This record gives sequence, C-alpha cells and structure tokens, in this order.
Amino acid sequence: MIKNRNDVRGEEGVYDIAIIGGATAGLTAGVYAGRKKLKAVILSKTVGGQSLLTDNIENFPGFESISGKELTEKMRAQTEKYGVEIREGIEVESLEKMTDAGKTVFLINIKNETKVKAKSIIIATGKSPRRLNIPGEKEYENKGVVFCSICDAPLFGGKDVAVVGSGNSGLESAADLLAYANKIYVLARGDKIRGDELIQEKLRKSGKVDFIMEAELKEIKGGKFVEKIIYADKKNGNMKELPVGGVFVNIGLIPSASFLRGKEGRSDFVEMNEQGEIVINPRTTESSVKGVFAAGDVSDVKYKQIVIAAAEGAKAALSAYECLMRE
Amino acid sequence: MIKNRNDVRGEEGVYDIAIIGGATAGLTAGVYAGRKKLKAVILSKTVGGQSLLTDNIENFPGFESISGKELTEKMRAQTEKYGVEIREGIEVESLEKMTDAGKTVFLINIKNETKVKAKSIIIATGKSPRRLNIPGEKEYENKGVVFCSICDAPLFGGKDVAVVGSGNSGLESAADLLAYANKIYVLARGDKIRGDELIQEKLRKSGKVDFIMEAELKEIKGGKFVEKIIYADKKNGNMKELPVGGVFVNIGLIPSASFLRGKEGRSDFVEMNEQGEIVINPRTTESSVKGVFAAGDVSDVKYKQIVIAAAEGAKAALSAYECLMRE
Repeated sequence: MIKNRNDVRGEEGVYDIAIIGGATAGLTAGVYAGRKKLKAVILSKTVGGQSLLTDNIENFPGFESISGKELTEKMRAQTEKYGVEIREGIEVESLEKMTDAGKTVFLINIKNETKVKAKSIIIATGKSPRRLNIPGEKEYENKGVVFCSICDAPLFGGKDVAVVGSGNSGLESAADLLAYANKIYVLARGDKIRGDELIQEKLRKSGKVDFIMEAELKEIKGGKFVEKIIYADKKNGNMKELPVGGVFVNIGLIPSASFLRGKEGRSDFVEMNEQGEIVINPRTTESSVKGVFAAGDVSDVKYKQIVIAAAEGAKAALSAYECLMRE
Repeated sequence: MIKNRNDVRGEEGVYDIAIIGGATAGLTAGVYAGRKKLKAVILSKTVGGQSLLTDNIENFPGFESISGKELTEKMRAQTEKYGVEIREGIEVESLEKMTDAGKTVFLINIKNETKVKAKSIIIATGKSPRRLNIPGEKEYENKGVVFCSICDAPLFGGKDVAVVGSGNSGLESAADLLAYANKIYVLARGDKIRGDELIQEKLRKSGKVDFIMEAELKEIKGGKFVEKIIYADKKNGNMKELPVGGVFVNIGLIPSASFLRGKEGRSDFVEMNEQGEIVINPRTTESSVKGVFAAGDVSDVKYKQIVIAAAEGAKAALSAYECLMRE
C-alpha cells in the first residue's frame, strides 16, 4: 500500500507499476508486485512469449520437461492469484514522462485506447524472430518459410527442409522436425555449431540431419510454395542450390521495443545498446530513466534464458517497489 | 567435451566445474553444466538449503504453492538426469589455486577425503541463520530456541512464543506458528515491519499476533526449557520481561563461506564485502578470481530470492562454460 496513491490524478487512476509484456519476465514481475500489494497492471498483446515457441522446456528448474504453453498457463494463474490485472490485446505505441503535482508519472500511449498512467514501468516485451531480409523470405512466409518450428513442423511430413541457424533455437527447430521431415539441412554461417552439445548429439544420432557449415542463405525460390534455396558457400565463394520444401528461420531475435523508438529508429526515451536492447543496471534492472525498469530478453542482460527472465522480472518488481517506497 | 580435458593430471581426474553447494543455485548450475556436457560435480553437506526451511513457497514461477522439500527433490532429479555427480556429506575446508602444465587448476580440500581438482568453481553455498549471541541462546537451542520454524512449529501447540525479527522470514515463522501457538509476539528492532504486506495482513487478521516494535532481545531464561525472554524497549530504555515457551530466531542470514576465510576471519581467496558475501560481476557471477564464480545468496546479488538464486546458478554455469571454451 504505497502512501499517497491519490496524489497523482488521472482519468482512470494511476497504477503503482505498469508492466509492459506478458511473458515470463512480465508475469513474474506481476507475482512479485502482487505480493507487495502494489496496484499493478500487465499490458500485453498476448500472454506468453518465446517460450510458447517450444513444447519441451527442460532447463527451467522444477520441471524436467514442460511445454511453453503449460508453463505460461501456470505463471498466468499465479499472477492473477495476486490480483494483478492482465490486459491483453494491448499495443503500446509510446511512453512519456511527465510531472504532476511535483511527482513523476509515466504515460503509456496505447493504440485505440485510453492512456494508462503509472508511477513506474517495467518493460518486459522480450524479443521476436530476426528476419533474413533476402528475396523470397516475405513472399513465401507461411508458404514454406517458417519462424515458429513448434507451430509448423507437423506440416512438413516427408519433406526435405532447411533450418537456417545453428544456435540453440536452430537446433531445437531441427529437433522439432525429426519426427516429421525426411531430411533436415542445418545451415550454419560459421565453422562451428553454436547450440548445446546435447541437442547436437541427438540430431547427429538421428541420421536425418546434415550440417552445412559456412553457408549464407541468399534467396528462397519456388512456385506457389518454397521449392529451393540458394546459398553462398563461404569456404570457396560458390553459389549452391538445394531443393527443399521448407525453410525454418532461426537466426536470432531482436528486442521487441519499437514503441521506444522515434522517427530515426533511435530511442528518445531510454538508453539502448547497438543490438537495440535496453541498457540496465544489472543489480536492479533500472534503465537510464529513474522509475523505468527492463526485465528479461528486451534488456541487455547477458544470458537469455527462461529462468533468468523470470528472475529479472522478480528483480524489476522488487526494485520498483523500493523506488516507490522512497517517494 | 572441453578440449584438452586430460591436460591436467590428478589422482582422480579433473572436473570441468566443481559446484560447491547443493541448494537451488547449485542444482540449477548443475542442470546447465550437464546440458553443456561438462564434467561437473556438486559437493555439498546436504542437498537443499534455505528453501527446505519453508513448506509453502508461493513466489517461484510455475508453482502456485510448493514445499521447499518437493521443489528440491524436483531440482535434484533434473540435475541427476544430466549425469551430474552429486556428492553429499562433503565438508569443504579450503580452496587453492595452482598451476599445472601451464593451466590453472583449483584444488578443493575436503575434510577426511581426497582433494577434488577442477578447472572452474561455482560457489553456491547459500546462507545460514544468524545467531543473536545473547545469554541463553546456545543453552536453550533445541530446548525452545528454534532456527527453523517449519521444522519445529508443531512442537509449540498451545504455547505463547516469541518470534525475533520482522523481515519476511520472521513473518513466515509467525505464519507457520498460527496453526499451533496460542499467542505469537513478533519482536521488531525498528519502528517498521519489514516483511511483505500480504503476510502482515494475514498475521493481523489472525488475532493471535502482537507486534512489539523497537524491541531488542537481551536474554533467554528458563528451567529445562525456555520460560521467558528479557528485552529492551528502545522507546524508553526500559527492560521488559515476557513469559514465552519458545523463541523463534529470524534475524537474518550469514553467508556460508567459512571455508574461504583464513585465520583472521578474512578471505584470502576471493573478495568479499562487509557482510561476508562474495563480490561478483553481476552480469557473469564471476568473482575476483578468474574461473571462480559465486551464485545465489552467498554472493552479493542484491535480492535473495529462490528464483533469483536459480537464475544465478544458470548464469554461473554458462559463464564457466564460456571461460572453459576460451582456454
């Protein structure tokens, strides 16, 4: 119960904390805010984020194996238990900082809806898949070009497919395809597979997976549907063609923070690094703006892992609470 | 899978990572080390730490409510699944850094057992209850003086008891006692209750709990068993007596890192802060010694929470892995 809650007037009241984003970090921030009895709201397009893209999370402590969907449901129920409002279908357009009766208040501008006012903000919008930006990618999206293997792997039964990217998400895509595809080509840009040895081993053992090293995808071609890819073999500079019926793109993620960017694509609100991640104090998750915190993959936290996103959400809520108590 | 694993010779081989401590941080470090196929060992007195002291964890994401025992069992099974060796009953006495064939190796000296050698170390030994260091405390330990409410609350049926400390652990102690004790006095040193509002409310609603503010416990007295406490009322300096049949001590925790301290009680191995916590780089968990990481409550991580300890364990294992790959 933060003192002076009503010091700041607004059309629909002022929240202690507005949490933008409803995936692991945002939901965990919600649990911690709720337990501190703060007036908190989660504003999000959807509930659940990247974890929804996998149905076999094995590295979240306490669960030997759980689907992203199930883990999200559990976290959502836990957050709601503490009376935290979850507003879905929300598209945040921009943030503003203002002063009202001597106190800082943040305005969250939302598409087609009334602004939300809050004394502190936790940005927990995560990341979304990076695009290749090559010819054919956009044209064949949902016609063989896939960004979510767990959603679409079953559609590629008996086909030869390419997976672009050899990090964990690439390898997991390939693993998702094992039960369906005929042959899986994993294209790696470098000369090393970056993902976990454990999954590599599983893929090698399957006999279904070929790793193509130092390959750079240049074009996706086909008729109504993807039929082949063209890639550059960086070892000798030759262009090569590979007939495939699907292309699974797993070349990394970009921070979902376009609402923080102004006209020149740069943030005029908080400091970001070159990757577009929000720069935080790693002890508190506070951004360059006092009262604004960033938790999980949208921040520059070093490792992007579900359990770390959860912990960052907890830290953000505890930091916001401290900040509110000092008011 | 680390290259040159056999470069360093030792009586019983060299581990890639030795994890000291088998609670949340250590077990999660184990999961991450195992998934990276590192040769890892967990060395610990027991499996499970502070979370064993509570049977109602409600703020660990994914579990609306779970006992510390059950969560520990789940984490243990998950760690063992990845082939990480867990050695219980181990008392680490000291650490040494040495160079063998041009490479750094750490020696872990263990009471009554062969030394363990490892290329990197994760210290995850957590914290243990701080003592009051007042007359009667030692004398009446297990005769009414209790450091683990969840273990012993049921023994105080119908009695009047004192809980010393008003942080979350103090309030949780009082909550554990609600079902058993007749009357619960919570002694706070300051003029404010520090623990979560949610638990405060529950305690106030019970009608069983009296908060005694600005009270400093001075002595515990009794016959065969605790009979009363003497405390100073800091508001006026008066000494007061309170008849109670039990004293639950919850005045905080101290880092379990005595094996790092030399003769003068100061660490000659890694940098520690004034609280005796290991100072870490908050992005990587690395200590002042390259190759030595600290995860969870034993480190100076700002917030001590189970989910944060888990995340710190994950970070430590990933950092150790990076460090080994650069060798």
